Amino acid sequence: MVRKKILILNGPNLNLLGTREPEIYGAQTFEQFLEILQDKFGSQLDTSYFQSNEEGVLINKLHEVGFSYDGILFNAGGYTHTSVALGDAVAAIKTPVIEIHISNVHAREDFRHHSYLSPKAKGIIVGFGLRGYELGLYSFL
Amino acid sequence: MVRKKILILNGPNLNLLGTREPEIYGAQTFEQFLEILQDKFGSQLDTSYFQSNEEGVLINKLHEVGFSYDGILFNAGGYTHTSVALGDAVAAIKTPVIEIHISNVHAREDFRHHSYLSPKAKGIIVGFGLRGYELGLYSFL
Amino acid sequence: MVRKKILILNGPNLNLLGTREPEIYGAQTFEQFLEILQDKFGSQLDTSYFQSNEEGVLINKLHEVGFSYDGILFNAGGYTHTSVALGDAVAAIKTPVIEIHISNVHAREDFRHHSYLSPKAKGIIVGFGLRGYELGLYSFL
Amino acid sequence: MVRKKILILNGPNLNLLGTREPEIYGAQTFEQFLEILQDKFGSQLDTSYFQSNEEGVLINKLHEVGFSYDGILFNAGGYTHTSVALGDAVAAIKTPVIEIHISNVHAREDFRHHSYLSPKAKGIIVGFGLRGYELGLYSFL
Amino acid sequence: MVRKKILILNGPNLNLLGTREPEIYGAQTFEQFLEILQDKFGSQLDTSYFQSNEEGVLINKLHEVGFSYDGILFNAGGYTHTSVALGDAVAAIKTPVIEIHISNVHAREDFRHHSYLSPKAKGIIVGFGLRGYELGLYSFL
Amino acid sequence: MVRKKILILNGPNLNLLGTREPEIYGAQTFEQFLEILQDKFGSQLDTSYFQSNEEGVLINKLHEVGFSYDGILFNAGGYTHTSVALGDAVAAIKTPVIEIHISNVHAREDFRHHSYLSPKAKGIIVGFGLRGYELGLYSFL
Amino acid sequence: MVRKKILILNGPNLNLLGTREPEIYGAQTFEQFLEILQDKFGSQLDTSYFQSNEEGVLINKLHEVGFSYDGILFNAGGYTHTSVALGDAVAAIKTPVIEIHISNVHAREDFRHHSYLSPKAKGIIVGFGLRGYELGLYSFL
Amino acid sequence: MVRKKILILNGPNLNLLGTREPEIYGAQTFEQFLEILQDKFGSQLDTSYFQSNEEGVLINKLHEVGFSYDGILFNAGGYTHTSVALGDAVAAIKTPVIEIHISNVHAREDFRHHSYLSPKAKGIIVGFGLRGYELGLYSFL
Amino acid sequence: MVRKKILILNGPNLNLLGTREPEIYGAQTFEQFLEILQDKFGSQLDTSYFQSNEEGVLINKLHEVGFSYDGILFNAGGYTHTSVALGDAVAAIKTPVIEIHISNVHAREDFRHHSYLSPKAKGIIVGFGLRGYELGLYSFL
Amino acid sequence: MVRKKILILNGPNLNLLGTREPEIYGAQTFEQFLEILQDKFGSQLDTSYFQSNEEGVLINKLHEVGFSYDGILFNAGGYTHTSVALGDAVAAIKTPVIEIHISNVHAREDFRHHSYLSPKAKGIIVGFGLRGYELGLYSFL
Amino acid sequence: MVRKKILILNGPNLNLLGTREPEIYGAQTFEQFLEILQDKFGSQLDTSYFQSNEEGVLINKLHEVGFSYDGILFNAGGYTHTSVALGDAVAAIKTPVIEIHISNVHAREDFRHHSYLSPKAKGIIVGFGLRGYELGLYSFL
Amino acid sequence: MVRKKILILNGPNLNLLGTREPEIYGAQTFEQFLEILQDKFGSQLDTSYFQSNEEGVLINKLHEVGFSYDGILFNAGGYTHTSVALGDAVAAIKTPVIEIHISNVHAREDFRHHSYLSPKAKGIIVGFGLRGYELGLYSFL
Repeated sequence: MVRKKILILNGPNLNLLGTREPEIYGAQTFEQFLEILQDKFGSQLDTSYFQSNEEGVLINKLHEVGFSYDGILFNAGGYTHTSVALGDAVAAIKTPVIEIHISNVHAREDFRHHSYLSPKAKGIIVGFGLRGYELGLYSFL
Repeated sequence: MVRKKILILNGPNLNLLGTREPEIYGAQTFEQFLEILQDKFGSQLDTSYFQSNEEGVLINKLHEVGFSYDGILFNAGGYTHTSVALGDAVAAIKTPVIEIHISNVHAREDFRHHSYLSPKAKGIIVGFGLRGYELGLYSFL
Repeated sequence: MVRKKILILNGPNLNLLGTREPEIYGAQTFEQFLEILQDKFGSQLDTSYFQSNEEGVLINKLHEVGFSYDGILFNAGGYTHTSVALGDAVAAIKTPVIEIHISNVHAREDFRHHSYLSPKAKGIIVGFGLRGYELGLYSFL
Repeated sequence: MVRKKILILNGPNLNLLGTREPEIYGAQTFEQFLEILQDKFGSQLDTSYFQSNEEGVLINKLHEVGFSYDGILFNAGGYTHTSVALGDAVAAIKTPVIEIHISNVHAREDFRHHSYLSPKAKGIIVGFGLRGYELGLYSFL
Repeated sequence: MVRKKILILNGPNLNLLGTREPEIYGAQTFEQFLEILQDKFGSQLDTSYFQSNEEGVLINKLHEVGFSYDGILFNAGGYTHTSVALGDAVAAIKTPVIEIHISNVHAREDFRHHSYLSPKAKGIIVGFGLRGYELGLYSFL
Repeated sequence: MVRKKILILNGPNLNLLGTREPEIYGAQTFEQFLEILQDKFGSQLDTSYFQSNEEGVLINKLHEVGFSYDGILFNAGGYTHTSVALGDAVAAIKTPVIEIHISNVHAREDFRHHSYLSPKAKGIIVGFGLRGYELGLYSFL
Repeated sequence: MVRKKILILNGPNLNLLGTREPEIYGAQTFEQFLEILQDKFGSQLDTSYFQSNEEGVLINKLHEVGFSYDGILFNAGGYTHTSVALGDAVAAIKTPVIEIHISNVHAREDFRHHSYLSPKAKGIIVGFGLRGYELGLYSFL
Repeated sequence: MVRKKILILNGPNLNLLGTREPEIYGAQTFEQFLEILQDKFGSQLDTSYFQSNEEGVLINKLHEVGFSYDGILFNAGGYTHTSVALGDAVAAIKTPVIEIHISNVHAREDFRHHSYLSPKAKGIIVGFGLRGYELGLYSFL
Repeated sequence: MVRKKILILNGPNLNLLGTREPEIYGAQTFEQFLEILQDKFGSQLDTSYFQSNEEGVLINKLHEVGFSYDGILFNAGGYTHTSVALGDAVAAIKTPVIEIHISNVHAREDFRHHSYLSPKAKGIIVGFGLRGYELGLYSFL
Repeated sequence: MVRKKILILNGPNLNLLGTREPEIYGAQTFEQFLEILQDKFGSQLDTSYFQSNEEGVLINKLHEVGFSYDGILFNAGGYTHTSVALGDAVAAIKTPVIEIHISNVHAREDFRHHSYLSPKAKGIIVGFGLRGYELGLYSFL
Repeated sequence: MVRKKILILNGPNLNLLGTREPEIYGAQTFEQFLEILQDKFGSQLDTSYFQSNEEGVLINKLHEVGFSYDGILFNAGGYTHTSVALGDAVAAIKTPVIEIHISNVHAREDFRHHSYLSPKAKGIIVGFGLRGYELGLYSFL
Repeated sequence: MVRKKILILNGPNLNLLGTREPEIYGAQTFEQFLEILQDKFGSQLDTSYFQSNEEGVLINKLHEVGFSYDGILFNAGGYTHTSVALGDAVAAIKTPVIEIHISNVHAREDFRHHSYLSPKAKGIIVGFGLRGYELGLYSFL
């Protein structure tokens, strides 16, 4: 069976997960978490990972995979709320994009309640912690 | 093994699913869809279902199960955007609530972009169609 | 000739018409007014009447008649300005809905200038007093 | 019996009705439509018609008839949403004014949801197509 | 001496008082609190109590007592901030209504700062905890 | 001595002064009031008068006199609050313009609180009734 | 028994009570009203009174008594809606402050609906006329 | 002939007129300007002058003269835009108040376009420089 | 070769070009500028010119040429920002309309940033001075 | 003759032109389109091209050419609406910048109606498709 | 060497520093803190101190020193956010004013994010605690 | 003594300082200015410098030094007002960040009045020109 190709794409500041405040967020890095996901879904999904703090680099990555991959899980971090250009990129590509937020953004500052990605996303998963990525992968089964 | 008790709670107009415009939404009623979910998750989750078009009746239901159940999947329909009282009820009970929307509310009218439930919900799943309920149940495994 | 089936549907506080302040609004109840309408239009229209102060009950009524009746005259009272769920119900049914307001809502408080029903209604009649219902029935001839 | 004198007053761009896109709006001009109305109401109402694209000319017309006629049906077109001066004119005259809109303005752009005439109008009829004028005349019977 | 008839009317979620989080709110139910009030004011006031989570049922209750009782203490809970229909009901009845809030709503979320009842209420008492009801009864002496 | 040339320019609906509701506004027409002004200021000011309900005609008049007259008293009526074009005309001409309002526009509807003319006017006189024109002429002595 | 020390503090324009328009507000001055209060509560409360039209003087008074008194009834008049500094003073002192308004400020102009004191007040009493002060004193029993 | 008693009341920062930047504003103090006014109007008007930088002191002055004087010319400076309490004072007294602004406040920052005094003032004179006070006195002749 | 028929349509105050402040705008009238354009494009484009200060007259002109001409360059001046009726006229006709602004309206007052014409225009050219008309004609080659 | 040096600068997602959905946008890449432009204008303009999806890289490019080139045509894509920093860069350089948009941004979502570049641009060309670049180059002749 | 004359000016509630909650803010009064500053800067700066809770008294002080001192450090407390009159005073005087805030006002309530002083201040120092005054003095060296 | 490690971090367009318009800003580059700072503070502070026009590169730099340095002076230029991601980065690191602005941003365009960094910054210094960096370094002594 051909496995679906899925990209997990993380935006600004998400590289700090696992190294910052381990007593709170746990000592697990995102890379270690990915291994668990691959144990669960590896037989059905071919999952790769990319992170950048740069808006344009994220757009480049969306363009690069967005006409051949089967799905993208995208946590755009702070760019979610400010980037028309990322929203345009999500709209321009063919691969469906699932928007992910680790925390419940609707319980935080007002400026985090609006997303330029949401109207263009295929689905949105908010507030489940790292498990949100797992739900996102599950949606591609 | 003791199965977790989960309530799927649907709000106004969601009773029309499956009977209205079957050529578009399919002829499947929500009750038929529930059977599929129970085949998948029945060994681990004890899922029940309730629907009402009345705001107060939904509040009553949240009170009734909200101190003993393990989880609630709640699609409040149009009340999502207007009911402070339902948001208060979600905050007042102990059972975690997952907010579900079938369509991508962020791609529709402006007044559907705000939810009084979201700040009180444990997680939010938007835009996956009926599969959103499946993702919600999966999150309780 | 088959008469068209029309429902006149009144929302919250409209049950007080005719009993409250008769020196101002007249001693005529809505039921008495209906008799006059039936004298005028009874040969062509089969008109029934329903009133409730409960939002969900009004939604239920719209669902009940909304796939078989020929028309609905709907005065949603205060729910006009706050109920996304009623607007959704009007959009979900097949029977055309005429929105009625007895007083000129645009000459009253700001919060009465917006209606969640208007974008979904087939027509809107405002400010003609009880005669607005008569104009609404006339539009179905 | 003395017939009531009624003016139908149309504002900007409404002169194009019937000549523009006849495959959509029909080939009927407003003048032809008036003949039908006069067949229906001519025994009771003495109806005349005036159209102008100029705001000041419409004000002049309101002044001219507004102290002697029995009623005015006024579709102010685009001036509805921008003209304080027309609203003042409606308030200044004695003849009651019925505001008419052919399309459902509340289902169109936001700037068409507000009317400077509505607070001063005796009644408002929206969304019934050309039949709105007929309902307006009926209200003077 | 004829005692004044007073209704204490509580809205959504207020039925949870006394059973929810007793370590915080105390183990006293509203019914037990009422006994204390009746000890204090029973010789002068004939106080009854009603609670509902349903907006329409609250409107019905206001209609039922609103032309014969001497006063109503009304804590509309979350409906305070969203219900035009309840505000209309308060305006439509003759019995004076005192608006009560247990907590200081002005120190909470922005959407709790506006009340559709306040402009129609005879008086407003905010932030005194359950003693607010006592102040309300005292105002009828 | 050469008398200063002053134009009094009135906008929409101000032609109704003196003929409408004489029991309230008095039976004095604006023309009669002008005679009184000319008695007072005629030796020093050469005052002429123009009124139109048409926005463009008012612009034309401002262009016509705006490079030769010594002053303009301009009551633009309802156009005050909506006409960028009139504001541009006042800015484009050389003659100083005094903005006049008979009633206290700041005690009326919100949309009358903003004027497109005020930022371009030399002075503004509000709320003195017809005497406002007298104060305006006095300012040119 | 030691009586509680309470300050009644009135802000701008409240010195006019009783001398202005006695046919409307009664000829009773606030000082005379205080005597009645003292008859009622004097055995339990040691009540003093202060009024000033000056914002800073009111702040000084709050500082002066705010670390030793048992309670303050504060009607800040027009400063209620504009004074961040008075709100800061209420927050800075230890004595609990009850905010009082004689009229129903929520039924008046929009700018009277917001209070800088309310989020810092222990309780708020609105619309009971002078009896609001009596309710405030009663709350300290 | 009894001369009318008029108070000219100036608010914050207006004491700097004449001493600050004389090359721009001229070396004339307000007191010197008053002498000119008294030469012109002294036979008919008994004009006195008061200035304070303190909001409460201005309120006190309005109370002091506001039940016996024939008129007040009030330039409230920066308090114009922020003081509900001064607006209340203008409304509470019987003497008519003319609001004066030396500069054209509508051509300056946005926050200077709104006045809490205007809705309560008898008339408003803006942008005539010091001559605005002269126009104000003239209006009392 | 058949030349395309193009109308250059100018709105309010644009008749003053060339006669007002020639030391700034040059002594060239719009008519003289047109001759230069005709020298450049006359072999391919049949260009005519019309100007009016009256909104309704501009609407009439759009109707007159809007079903037969090949293009319209329209500088609506101040009406750009206030006229729903002109926007409706542009939408109603078949001839494509190019919106022109001589100055950079986005660098001026806020109220000049919005245009009712832009959503209906085929193209928009802003800030190139009179050369904007030349670019507009060039776009029809 | 020395040819003017012009940079065409394209922002995010514009690299997808010509490769994405060729059946809609044509199979022509921007590079192929440039060849046509160079045929037309090559004798007079020395045109170069640069595209980046990265905001900072675009700023760098503006700095690099902005003190020596004769003109820049800049289509900033989605950054147009969100980047203060790009607006600052346009203001900081000496080379005049023409803002280009291929589609009519004013007929799309509200957030595309505001541009941080427009107030700093020398000219703005919107809605002409790829021909907008041609008009931009023409403006430098 | 002539020392520069500097006034440290504190507004409402800042007199409570050092006496209120010493366990939090320390037992140091502002006067004691000033001694430390004078030890550091006394050889170069002649620093005096003034505090008032009254807006007008602060204006008077600014006028008194504002044409002779070399600098003012001004912490206007709550008046920062509400006083146009203090902003006008800062603009009217010649001495440069440094605006100081002890806490980070941008991390507090929304109404503390705007300052009427900032546009007129020479510099602004926020969030450094009492050391902000030290930075302010240092800026005058 | 161990010197504190401080990073001065400059954002977009700040690389142009010293080379652009030297007659206005001086011919001093930021690098030359740094030498002066190092003369003053070099014995106590180990200061390094970094500038980038790229948002993501600035985030990377904050991450790189933000867990080991003693302080960061950050002038984020135009990103200050638009970057949620930079605000998140400032909040995520441990090193305290001082926000610097050379000009008085509160005296410029409205969109420069809000900063996403300020709520997360330890201190804010605005309007002191290049000396703001000196004050910032001084705060770390």
